[in-house]
Amino acid sequence: MTTKTNSGRFFEDFAIGEVIRHATPRTVTAGDASLYAALYGTRFAVQSSDVFAKALGYRHAPVDDLLVFHIVFGKTVPDVSLNAVANLGYAAARFLAPVYPGDTLRAVSEVIGLKENSNRRTGVVYVRSTGFNQDGVEVLDYVRWVMVHKRDPEAVIAEEHVPTLPRVVATDALGDACPALDPAAYDDVLAGSLDRWDDYEVGEQIDHVDGMTVEEAEHMLATRLYQNTAKVHFDQLAQASSRFGRRLIYGGHVISLARALSFNGLANAFHVAAINGGRHVAPLFAGDTVYAWSEILDKQPLPGRDDVGGLRVRMVATKNKPCRDFPLKDGEEYDPAVILDLDLWVLAPR
Amino acid sequence: MTTKTNSGRFFEDFAIGEVIRHATPRTVTAGDASLYAALYGTRFAVQSSDVFAKALGYRHAPVDDLLVFHIVFGKTVPDVSLNAVANLGYAAARFLAPVYPGDTLRAVSEVIGLKENSNRRTGVVYVRSTGFNQDGVEVLDYVRWVMVHKRDPEAVIAEEHVPTLPRVVATDALGDACPALDPAAYDDVLAGSLDRWDDYEVGEQIDHVDGMTVEEAEHMLATRLYQNTAKVHFDQLAQASSRFGRRLIYGGHVISLARALSFNGLANAFHVAAINGGRHVAPLFAGDTVYAWSEILDKQPLPGRDDVGGLRVRMVATKNKPCRDFPLKDGEEYDPAVILDLDLWVLAPR
Amino acid sequence: MTTKTNSGRFFEDFAIGEVIRHATPRTVTAGDASLYAALYGTRFAVQSSDVFAKALGYRHAPVDDLLVFHIVFGKTVPDVSLNAVANLGYAAARFLAPVYPGDTLRAVSEVIGLKENSNRRTGVVYVRSTGFNQDGVEVLDYVRWVMVHKRDPEAVIAEEHVPTLPRVVATDALGDACPALDPAAYDDVLAGSLDRWDDYEVGEQIDHVDGMTVEEAEHMLATRLYQNTAKVHFDQLAQASSRFGRRLIYGGHVISLARALSFNGLANAFHVAAINGGRHVAPLFAGDTVYAWSEILDKQPLPGRDDVGGLRVRMVATKNKPCRDFPLKDGEEYDPAVILDLDLWVLAPR
Repeated sequence: MTTKTNSGRFFEDFAIGEVIRHATPRTVTAGDASLYAALYGTRFAVQSSDVFAKALGYRHAPVDDLLVFHIVFGKTVPDVSLNAVANLGYAAARFLAPVYPGDTLRAVSEVIGLKENSNRRTGVVYVRSTGFNQDGVEVLDYVRWVMVHKRDPEAVIAEEHVPTLPRVVATDALGDACPALDPAAYDDVLAGSLDRWDDYEVGEQIDHVDGMTVEEAEHMLATRLYQNTAKVHFDQLAQASSRFGRRLIYGGHVISLARALSFNGLANAFHVAAINGGRHVAPLFAGDTVYAWSEILDKQPLPGRDDVGGLRVRMVATKNKPCRDFPLKDGEEYDPAVILDLDLWVLAPR
Repeated sequence: MTTKTNSGRFFEDFAIGEVIRHATPRTVTAGDASLYAALYGTRFAVQSSDVFAKALGYRHAPVDDLLVFHIVFGKTVPDVSLNAVANLGYAAARFLAPVYPGDTLRAVSEVIGLKENSNRRTGVVYVRSTGFNQDGVEVLDYVRWVMVHKRDPEAVIAEEHVPTLPRVVATDALGDACPALDPAAYDDVLAGSLDRWDDYEVGEQIDHVDGMTVEEAEHMLATRLYQNTAKVHFDQLAQASSRFGRRLIYGGHVISLARALSFNGLANAFHVAAINGGRHVAPLFAGDTVYAWSEILDKQPLPGRDDVGGLRVRMVATKNKPCRDFPLKDGEEYDPAVILDLDLWVLAPR
Repeated sequence: MTTKTNSGRFFEDFAIGEVIRHATPRTVTAGDASLYAALYGTRFAVQSSDVFAKALGYRHAPVDDLLVFHIVFGKTVPDVSLNAVANLGYAAARFLAPVYPGDTLRAVSEVIGLKENSNRRTGVVYVRSTGFNQDGVEVLDYVRWVMVHKRDPEAVIAEEHVPTLPRVVATDALGDACPALDPAAYDDVLAGSLDRWDDYEVGEQIDHVDGMTVEEAEHMLATRLYQNTAKVHFDQLAQASSRFGRRLIYGGHVISLARALSFNGLANAFHVAAINGGRHVAPLFAGDTVYAWSEILDKQPLPGRDDVGGLRVRMVATKNKPCRDFPLKDGEEYDPAVILDLDLWVLAPR
């Protein structure tokens, strides 16, 4: 009788090549953008002002790239990761078209890899998830892999495959979500910084200075806004008996916090064009204070474009430790304060 | 001099037949819908996607039925229940027209019953409250009764009357807020479940599995969004000396939490057509975790319609107790974990 | 290398006559208005209902005046008060044009005064900040003064000047943000009170009765919505070693709470036309409960208008103390419960 509830796929329920259409389609609105602003305090001018965005060449202000990511990601949770042990990584995330308030997003995932673990109790599932708008235009494409429980350790997996994934998104695959801009119309003062693409150097490290303490209500509001149903974020009673005894904060919440903090030092890096990869090094809990710093890993023009250039940024977030000393590793291991180590391509006007 | 503040009506201030126009008219917007999503994590496709809703026959995505209920209810509080001892019940709530972002709601209540208690210090007031949109179209109609203090125990009540209320809304009174739908356009996969009206059986019980812990900030944001001014929800200083010592969470917040949880098992029951009645069995406080289960009490086609059918659902919410064993009664009494016992008509595609 | 982050101006970085254009331009939306409603529970009919506002003569419902104030104020923080010791006061704030969802706000400040303190470690900066909409129309204009650290106590200040500021905004400077209204179209019952401008008397004191307890998540959501980056509101780790050991709540949050509470007694005072001045007497922290009371200081018609009149109101907010006794002074000093003493012009229909 209770088969009407979704208990999620187990490892043996996935098959290479399977295409999963996810519920629930979602019209993104100005209300979502306002909530996103209130949750993170993001201040990038392109996403904040219709006037600023139009002057550059956008139809009007697009919603934040990471809001699109979280909404698409949220849709995949009930089908992909409800029985996940851990979210192991993502790669090759590309933003492919701007998303404006009024657009309706839906998501599809293809199973592109399966690898059973030797203990036969779990396996790793690789999916390529794609977000589409109401016109069928791809707005986001990314790969993630998660370790998923098997229902039955004896179950046999028909076909296994580990996909080859790029470590870095190629520069000719960047910028599809950024229309041709008029750099002369880009008002640096209004945008909050005089530093454009040319002013950054490879190897440069930037402490984003500010700290943000997170409350339970905030991360739950965010994660519900993304219709992400992963139980660990919401159910304190169940979590009380978990390893941490606490609700875990959605990793994407940390990414958005770090991205908003990064405005202080990267104000003109207005667009996340790609997420090359990343790791949630340690969990974040309510009451913790998040800080962030960035390192410019690479700097590349975009083929055929002289309006914007790409900065490959390592964005590191910590908890309860300011980033003036750029905490990262402590010998072989991560500094215990580090919670996020993300590798992004961001675009800035030239 | 302080007569400019509203101290609320006492029992002897009501009269049978009195019609009360309530403040404040309220334009419902996409911002309200986003907040509703963030507060509850609701995932019903019709309310979430303009594209999905339009394909079925809606103008675009309507706002959640319970958001309409809470907004109309909130308006009645300053006039009806500011001096209430307890909210005793509601009956015959019918949703009569879809509400879209941009619509402006106002509310009117008629006093349809009065019954003084034998102690002469309190009495029960019955009101029929109606929500209207900007075109004067009724969008919601319901009866509630509350126990209200008398200002003066000696005051004499001119006329008393206890109205007869239906235990269940008749099926021919259901569905006015649901336009004629094209069931072929209803995409079950996008909606999140393959189970339609035909797949549910009377007597079936569904554990909605997931739990949601509630924070003070969340229920206060919600209740203020509904412009509900009942003091017990907001003033910790005053509540510290109350029976519970805590802020009480608005009962409607519990209903919306349970309804959002019920998606897991009732994903296609996209529309609340009526609330037959219900009881807030016990109070909810911040820090508690809410679970829910449902039982199909009845299943009826709607007269003259073959697009959608009605499911009468008993929706039970608990606090701090998962619902896998369908907790309800403990002998004659409610199980101490039960906080809500609600009787609804929901519609699902056939 | 870290010069790309904004470390804010120090006292010696300001010069009389300097004009500072602030980042980030911001399109105000219905989403912001919904969040404002959820954060404060405001119930003024003009800002709540398109239908109500249009009937009076507005294009549609304007956003709350204080939301405009907070957004403009927030923009000035990174340039003016990042190194502030204290926000000392504001004066002559006038609302000059209605702001509607869809309007884009930007802000400019002119340095109009500088006065070094005798210790040479700090000085007082006076700025006149102006908010503009997308058409270049001024929507808000105000003066504030803040005590700012010097980077170098030895630095010499070229020119000092202390501007003369009006104690009260003149009545002929009020009402620009309020279109000519049709008072006959003003529905008192829908607005929530039968008391219009004529019904208030100079000297009248009004206890606004209700209390509102504030949570950390709420004030941070609000302050981020305003893109106000002052560190003291967000970083618990840094604040732990501060004088108070706590995150300080943005003073504007207190003003909006008091204003929303003031609906109960001033429901028809729908528009804040000017802030004559005010003082944040003591800090507010999460967990505190805010109450408010008002005194009518003056009552004036507006030159050439018979649709609305001005009420000069002293609005006082307290923490953890109800206002039935109108707490204000305790001998020479403020009552320790008082947190806000604000002097406003509000408009009400005649």
